[in-house]
Amino acid sequence: MEMSELSSANMNALAMMLMSGEVRVVDCTATLGPSTPLEHHASVVQPELEIHKISEYDADGPFFAWNWLKIGEHAGTHFDAPAAIASGQSGDTTDTVTAQDLAGPVCVIDVSDMCRADPAFRLTPDHIATWEHQNTPIPKGAWVVMHSGQTNTKRHPGPDGDAMTMLLERGIIGFGTDCISIDAADAASTEAPCPAQQNLARAGCYGLASLNNLDQLPSTGAILIAPPLKFVGGTGSPVRALALVPGQ
Amino acid sequence: MEMSELSSANMNALAMMLMSGEVRVVDCTATLGPSTPLEHHASVVQPELEIHKISEYDADGPFFAWNWLKIGEHAGTHFDAPAAIASGQSGDTTDTVTAQDLAGPVCVIDVSDMCRADPAFRLTPDHIATWEHQNTPIPKGAWVVMHSGQTNTKRHPGPDGDAMTMLLERGIIGFGTDCISIDAADAASTEAPCPAQQNLARAGCYGLASLNNLDQLPSTGAILIAPPLKFVGGTGSPVRALALVPGQ
Repeated sequence: MEMSELSSANMNALAMMLMSGEVRVVDCTATLGPSTPLEHHASVVQPELEIHKISEYDADGPFFAWNWLKIGEHAGTHFDAPAAIASGQSGDTTDTVTAQDLAGPVCVIDVSDMCRADPAFRLTPDHIATWEHQNTPIPKGAWVVMHSGQTNTKRHPGPDGDAMTMLLERGIIGFGTDCISIDAADAASTEAPCPAQQNLARAGCYGLASLNNLDQLPSTGAILIAPPLKFVGGTGSPVRALALVPGQ
Repeated sequence: MEMSELSSANMNALAMMLMSGEVRVVDCTATLGPSTPLEHHASVVQPELEIHKISEYDADGPFFAWNWLKIGEHAGTHFDAPAAIASGQSGDTTDTVTAQDLAGPVCVIDVSDMCRADPAFRLTPDHIATWEHQNTPIPKGAWVVMHSGQTNTKRHPGPDGDAMTMLLERGIIGFGTDCISIDAADAASTEAPCPAQQNLARAGCYGLASLNNLDQLPSTGAILIAPPLKFVGGTGSPVRALALVPGQ
């Protein structure tokens, strides 16, 4: 078969598997509303999310229910563009990221056992080496996601700067976490805050935070799709993060 | 091969084709900012989009550039949940839609020639029958997208109510358009507005409006992923709409 026929056949097979449920779509997104916990760093404070009614099948508009929102770029399950961080200042914003990079394979590093024992756990190069030994070398162009199982927003784990450097050497497209920020809580508001995310942004790579349902993803073999809204000059965006997961 | 092995092999092939570019990711999204045209209906008026700085590598936060936004649920390239429309009042909101439905095959009906001749063009059952004759019966679970090529927000085409009913009989998951609203402009603010979208919402199906780059999609064979943000009770959401397109 020609490459083009092969890719058409593959896409047709995927379409059928999506419709049959043989490939599952896992929603890796937290519900987003006024009670969603928000990421803040020192003086950088996001406003509380507000939902304002425009109409609700009523005198304001009998045929429509619509709202408008006040919302932070980094609220809830969200995407961090490189330009969100000083080290990525000359990097992409949400409207300049490359579409081809927005869907890719995902490696899931499950550290939930270690985080249960130590909620301030740091992911180090040793943990990544162990994961690669047990699974596969992390491929160029992949997302890497840390599954911590932690929901505390004041004290939570994250990768250290060296772990992020190691992943960037592998050529990852981005790093995601189920915690409220990429870096561990106690690394987020220091004098030189967020060393891991500074490394990530310096390399022009992407971040994802507050991911959900990571326990439903295999270590390898899923495809993660978590593209930011296309805000002009946006430094980040709430996202609907989906994973396509092959049958198990 | 077992089904599970088949689906794993298929996902691995897709991952490799995404990374090689053999499967292209087409960005079907318009840039979203203060100059983005907004959909309104009679008294249902969305506020202008505003972007407010929180910090920009400055005294407000030297390590971060972040913004917050004032934004309508139906701004720019956006998803319409059934509950946006009176006929879908008991239907899904953006936080209750089924994840499995958010990625699926897309049938693209190119009516750009006819719309160039008549910007108020109506897509009718006859046009759909012709498309099916030339292509394939529209499969259950597919998105159907109308490619009009029209960018005028005051006068634009759309499907008539019967065309939408015909598509719903096929079992589509949703209907999308490159126009600013599902229904044609001159059907959007009448006494019984938006007959096509009323039918769509009554059936619990989804809408997509202001899609971009539809000329880059094949008539069949692509997969459309345009999931809404997971707003609690949301009637719609700006989206980053992506299409996975096999090599041609």
